[in-house]
Order: sequence, then C-alpha cells, then structure tokens
Amino acid sequence: MLKRDYAGQNCSVARTLEIVGERWSLLIIRDVLRGLRRFDQLQESLGIATNVLSSRLDRLVQTGILERVPYQEKPVRHEYRLTERGLELRTPLIALMHWGDRYLAPDGPPVVTEHATCGAPIVAELVCSGCGKPVTLGELRTHQRVAA
Amino acid sequence: MLKRDYAGQNCSVARTLEIVGERWSLLIIRDVLRGLRRFDQLQESLGIATNVLSSRLDRLVQTGILERVPYQEKPVRHEYRLTERGLELRTPLIALMHWGDRYLAPDGPPVVTEHATCGAPIVAELVCSGCGKPVTLGELRTHQRVAA
Repeated sequence: MLKRDYAGQNCSVARTLEIVGERWSLLIIRDVLRGLRRFDQLQESLGIATNVLSSRLDRLVQTGILERVPYQEKPVRHEYRLTERGLELRTPLIALMHWGDRYLAPDGPPVVTEHATCGAPIVAELVCSGCGKPVTLGELRTHQRVAA
Repeated sequence: MLKRDYAGQNCSVARTLEIVGERWSLLIIRDVLRGLRRFDQLQESLGIATNVLSSRLDRLVQTGILERVPYQEKPVRHEYRLTERGLELRTPLIALMHWGDRYLAPDGPPVVTEHATCGAPIVAELVCSGCGKPVTLGELRTHQRVAA
C-alpha cells in the first residue's frame, strides 16, 4: 500500500513533479532556457504576481535547478541561470512542447527547435542505449527495480 | 507584450501545462500507462480523494487524453484507457522520470525502462530528424516561427 502523501511514493515522476510539477516552475525554466535571466524579464514574460514569481524562483534555487548570480555590484543585482541539473530538464520540456505542437497548435508550432549544425527539426525520442534504435510503444518495457 | 493570463501565451509548453501541468494529471497518466485502468486501482495507487480523482479523470477525458470504456454491463462499469494523444505523452513522462532518476533517486531508479527487444536501458533524447544524431545543448537552436 502506497502512502497517501504522494511525495512518499517511490517514483521518479512523483519526485520530479514535487519540484517542477507546478506550471509556473516549468514556464520559468522554459524562459530561462531561452535566455531570460532577470527578475523583471521573467515577470514581464510570464505576467505573474511578483510574490509568486519570487517564491517559485526561491524554490528553484533551493532545489538546485537555478542559481542566483550577481551581474552588477552597485547596487548588487542578480540574474538566474540554469545549473547542470536545470539544463538537463530541456529534454522533458522540449518533449512536452512538441506534444503541444502536435495536438494543441493547429496553426503550427509557435517555436521551432532545430539542429544548429544542419538546420533540421529536432525530435524528442525514446532511444535504446544498447542498439541505438528508436523505441516504439510496443517495445517499451518497464519494471520495478528490486532494491539490493 | 504577452497576456497576463498565461493560457493565452502562444507557446506549446504553456498550452500543454494547461492540460497536464497539474501533478495529479501526470501521475494519473503514469499509472494508466503502467496498466492501472480502473477508478479503484487509481485511487488506491495515488491515495487521493475520490472527488479530486473524478475531476482530474473527467478533465483528461474532455481533453482527449483518456477515454472511458465499459468493461462490464450489469452494472455498467468503466475503465480508462489512453488515447493516441495520451500515449504520446510517454516521451515527456519518461524524460521527466529519467531526470528524477538521475537527480532525485540516490538509491537508483525505482522503475527501470528497457527496450523489450534487446533488454538495454531506454534513454529520452533530443535527436536531429535530419542527420539522426543526438543534439547537444550547444547545438540546440530555437526561434519563434513567423505566422504565414
């Protein structure tokens, strides 16, 4: 029987959603990924209340996804940068975006993601680390890992 | 200037989060993906209030991610199945799970995802649809598409 508090569920989806499962957090990460780094820029882009933005940013810093870096000394001002673990959220974020492009964007993708070196569209895929092939739905096997 | 209500933002991440950006919805999709299809099974797995589960399921049916299918006639009982668009959420979901495995699961991944045909671990990757190569952070280019 799983605990009623899903934070206790031994699942990496549940744990990840504890940190970034709230909409604003993922939209903040999206904006920082596309180069908006300052509080005012984020506030203007997202149009959320400053206290809500502050608390979300604080949480993302506490959980090691963003870092606050000074960019000016007098007066001291900070900007937000994605840490390594924050940058690694680009794959799920872009996978979510492409899903939305496919099913929720009848006029076409608002933002295009391309491979800079050859200009072709990028796709988010499940790939086998062994044979290197894309993994179809029918070839996807999941099982609980038994703790050692 | 973007609208203050982020639902109006012309962005597929924002639109997708309108549907699945709430934690329970993604956890419901996770559970249905791993074979839990009945209300009672979902309720036991997630441990949420039945009224909350009902409203989330209704919303996922309304947005075309789940469908309600009768599995018994007297009395009529329904189960939930992922539609095609629901199944296509597996890539962002597994990408989120792998991120959590990497950064939030010090004892190792609770659930292993494998390629059924060769047994090797699956990875969620950004891949170029042109040259077929994995796309590194530095090779990722995004730009706003200009509407025709």
